[in-house]
Amino acid sequence: MKICVAQINVKIGDFEGNTSKIADVLFNAKREGADLVVFPEMTVCGYSPDDLLDYPSFVERSEYSLELVAQSCQGIAAIVGGVMRNPNKGRLLQNVCCFMENGRIQHTIAKTLLPTYDVFQESRYFESAKESQIIDFKGVKIGIAICEDLWDRYNEFEYTQSPGEVLKESGAELIINPSASPFHLGKQSHRNRVLSGQVNRFSLPVLYVNQIGIHTELLFDGSSRAVNNDGEVVLQLEEFEEDIEYINFENGRFSINDKTLTVGSDNVALLHKALVFGIKDYFNKMGFKKAILGASGGVDSALVQTLAVQALGVENVTAVLMPSRYSSKSSVKDAVELSKNLGNPYWEIPITDIHDSYEHTLQPYFKDLPIGLAEENIQARSRAVLLMALSNKHGNILLNTSNKSEMAVGYSTLYGDLCGSISVIGDIYKTQVYALCEYINASEEIISNNILTKEPSAELRPDQKDSDSLPDYAILDGILRLYIEERKGLQEIILEGYEANTVRKVLNLVNASEYKRYQAPPIIRVSSKGFGKGRIMPLVAKYP
Amino acid sequence: MKICVAQINVKIGDFEGNTSKIADVLFNAKREGADLVVFPEMTVCGYSPDDLLDYPSFVERSEYSLELVAQSCQGIAAIVGGVMRNPNKGRLLQNVCCFMENGRIQHTIAKTLLPTYDVFQESRYFESAKESQIIDFKGVKIGIAICEDLWDRYNEFEYTQSPGEVLKESGAELIINPSASPFHLGKQSHRNRVLSGQVNRFSLPVLYVNQIGIHTELLFDGSSRAVNNDGEVVLQLEEFEEDIEYINFENGRFSINDKTLTVGSDNVALLHKALVFGIKDYFNKMGFKKAILGASGGVDSALVQTLAVQALGVENVTAVLMPSRYSSKSSVKDAVELSKNLGNPYWEIPITDIHDSYEHTLQPYFKDLPIGLAEENIQARSRAVLLMALSNKHGNILLNTSNKSEMAVGYSTLYGDLCGSISVIGDIYKTQVYALCEYINASEEIISNNILTKEPSAELRPDQKDSDSLPDYAILDGILRLYIEERKGLQEIILEGYEANTVRKVLNLVNASEYKRYQAPPIIRVSSKGFGKGRIMPLVAKYP
Repeated sequence: MKICVAQINVKIGDFEGNTSKIADVLFNAKREGADLVVFPEMTVCGYSPDDLLDYPSFVERSEYSLELVAQSCQGIAAIVGGVMRNPNKGRLLQNVCCFMENGRIQHTIAKTLLPTYDVFQESRYFESAKESQIIDFKGVKIGIAICEDLWDRYNEFEYTQSPGEVLKESGAELIINPSASPFHLGKQSHRNRVLSGQVNRFSLPVLYVNQIGIHTELLFDGSSRAVNNDGEVVLQLEEFEEDIEYINFENGRFSINDKTLTVGSDNVALLHKALVFGIKDYFNKMGFKKAILGASGGVDSALVQTLAVQALGVENVTAVLMPSRYSSKSSVKDAVELSKNLGNPYWEIPITDIHDSYEHTLQPYFKDLPIGLAEENIQARSRAVLLMALSNKHGNILLNTSNKSEMAVGYSTLYGDLCGSISVIGDIYKTQVYALCEYINASEEIISNNILTKEPSAELRPDQKDSDSLPDYAILDGILRLYIEERKGLQEIILEGYEANTVRKVLNLVNASEYKRYQAPPIIRVSSKGFGKGRIMPLVAKYP
Repeated sequence: MKICVAQINVKIGDFEGNTSKIADVLFNAKREGADLVVFPEMTVCGYSPDDLLDYPSFVERSEYSLELVAQSCQGIAAIVGGVMRNPNKGRLLQNVCCFMENGRIQHTIAKTLLPTYDVFQESRYFESAKESQIIDFKGVKIGIAICEDLWDRYNEFEYTQSPGEVLKESGAELIINPSASPFHLGKQSHRNRVLSGQVNRFSLPVLYVNQIGIHTELLFDGSSRAVNNDGEVVLQLEEFEEDIEYINFENGRFSINDKTLTVGSDNVALLHKALVFGIKDYFNKMGFKKAILGASGGVDSALVQTLAVQALGVENVTAVLMPSRYSSKSSVKDAVELSKNLGNPYWEIPITDIHDSYEHTLQPYFKDLPIGLAEENIQARSRAVLLMALSNKHGNILLNTSNKSEMAVGYSTLYGDLCGSISVIGDIYKTQVYALCEYINASEEIISNNILTKEPSAELRPDQKDSDSLPDYAILDGILRLYIEERKGLQEIILEGYEANTVRKVLNLVNASEYKRYQAPPIIRVSSKGFGKGRIMPLVAKYP
């Protein structure tokens, strides 16, 4: 049997676009003599449509699209994902994969394990499958396990059901695992553990087919794989690229003729690829072309600017320098130099007059109250007003430049530097920001050494330094990782060797900043626990 | 048996505060000779702690608090809610109610039906109960059904399990239903249908005990009830107030001595009560005292200002008038008059200079491009910068004044009038705004007739009217209700009798504004489908 592995990029709700892409793949696969094409989870509708699923008209279009695709399966079979109405009692919908052949849907397999944690909320919509099916195709007994169905033992808890076990007991000889498995740094090795663990447990070959693309904050990387029952990885598809490959399955084993095996990585190069792809696919799918950002001469905006240029092209990124009376000459110089290095257009728009007019207007209400946060925020917010005005006028989309460390401790101004259509590095800690810059600079110095070595500062008052109010970033990021990614509490973090007062201070800052993150832009997610839909925190609460 | 119905207001994560409130109720109830005190769902930790539940240290504090409360149950029994670790396979936690007596937890009942739709996400955290228990207390067989456990037939789908049926079959003579059931307009009558429906179905008396309070966007109204098995409502507690009442249960029936029955309502008076309570409890729980808002002379800010004065007191609300070159004299006059009527402080801070300085600064980049949205938004955003500066300087919390119709169609400026710590009327359509104003004016004219009768305008360009770009609010709100609350699609709404092009335009506006709502403040929820956590929509998507 010749199987086509169709790692494609679909768009949520774009039924015409998605089905026409599916039809193209089917057409080519047939020409290549494939017997079966396997697509990712929720192929026709994209993953995940969220509450669009509450609209019956949306679900009907998904069902109709599956019917249409099935009609074009003549002389070739396909496994295609979508959503359908649940014919039985319980939740109104099911997350299904259809096995199509001879112009119709021959089998509809529903998902059993519905991930409902972190960024997943499938129990919000779907009823779990109540029964299992084995598909007999070309003499092979195929079991379909949809994404999480193969992850029964690989989360923080163990599910009470094991769809893989049921398939094995029902005589499956091959497990096909259409997936929508989002990327994060470290996910590749986690997936390796899951796939090799399950292959070994069931002694069955597994074909894992993942989607690529950005869906609001979620980034999907592909990296589809075929693994034989002895653990041999026969095929691994590209990361963050549409990739269509063919593989043979004979006598219970996968084999391939000529494809060089992509070797997955889990490092800064992959992180870089993820972010560049994320920006690019976000702009593509939203129909945007040009970006704008505030360039401070600091390392965060320098990184975002460079990533944006790499994603969108140098002519499509405009850097806006908005020096205030507190901006150092070297900051402006560094920012100009970066734009010159990259070759993108830049504008220098001082905020001095605007800053003065706010001070003058507010003087009767500020009187002789001590200078502080209010004055600092006015500058950050004036810049946001300028950036949004330029965005409105020229149609450039504003990129947010806050990093995860800042977002975490609230070292950012709401409606100021927290503005933007999408946050590019909001899931990257400050220490990772430097690592990415070094990676980018590996062959030539794009981001100047000045930018990388100067002490971080918001430059909102004279001689301000991040280190005035925050611990060293190495310590800060260490504590943040334990608190955010590992869900450790105060005492547990202190036991890891951090100084008690520092831990207490950092945790208090994180908790006290929930209200800012509530109104923050969507953040491209590249960690196992990002801010956004994967971390839902109450505002009205007493934090420990 | 004398039962104390403890409709209390707890705060999420405030274990000390909540347990000490519980202990007070127990102390008084014992003095009153009560046998049993029934508290709402998740009493010790508040509902819902969201992802604080992912922190083991949080769960341990919940368990510890339940133990402590149990120790004080000497000579009195209590039903107290909380979260506990799941001792078996599956999700790590359970949503439980503990039956406490003689200084310890005698029975732990877990919740079976875990609401995971709209604003609920319990499957994200909890494992469903696998077994049922009947508690024999003072000769009565008590079955505990936690909140949703009694709602198996009253959602958009029917659950596959019926905990009430199981309790009935196990011999229960009384069903106690500790709840955390959020308010929305129309919920009272829905609850009546559920309670009378279930009482009738099982032929059993039901005691429903709900919490009150605001938990970020969720508002809980109490309205706890005791219903006999013939449908007689023996007791109904206050709406939006802490209320502790005593009721007798003898020979299978509730009876009460002297309490006058509160009659629940479902109208504009209740909506008014909800919003005033919502503001008040939000400020209380957040530790805020004073509020600030932009007063435009329009009906939305007039309503918010009045509600805030009613909730926080006249000295704690500052109205800020920020006229631009396009503000009409009558708007300023109307805004001044409202503050004088109410008696709250107000400041008049023209934005003319600031507006000029932006125009001047941006002139080289705007050149002779046509005047439009960019220029309008600068005004709205300048006002937000001023309001936030005053908020930062004086510690007044900014109230958002956008209504639901505006929020829906994006007739609001992101980082401009969309700013605020909390949105007061973001779940109230424009037509409801007028109804509320009329209700407030019933005994004396607080909000002037001018404000109520002038044509709505954002006043961001000369002679601008809302009706230039939007259909009449009666039509707009009708379409919005069908699309948002009833999840009807384009064709279905047209079939309800609305003009096709208008429907298409409105739906497009709603879809195209998702990005603004993504960054909007939390909105006090008073409808069955509010914006916020109850309506999660993708940004990167093709909308129909």
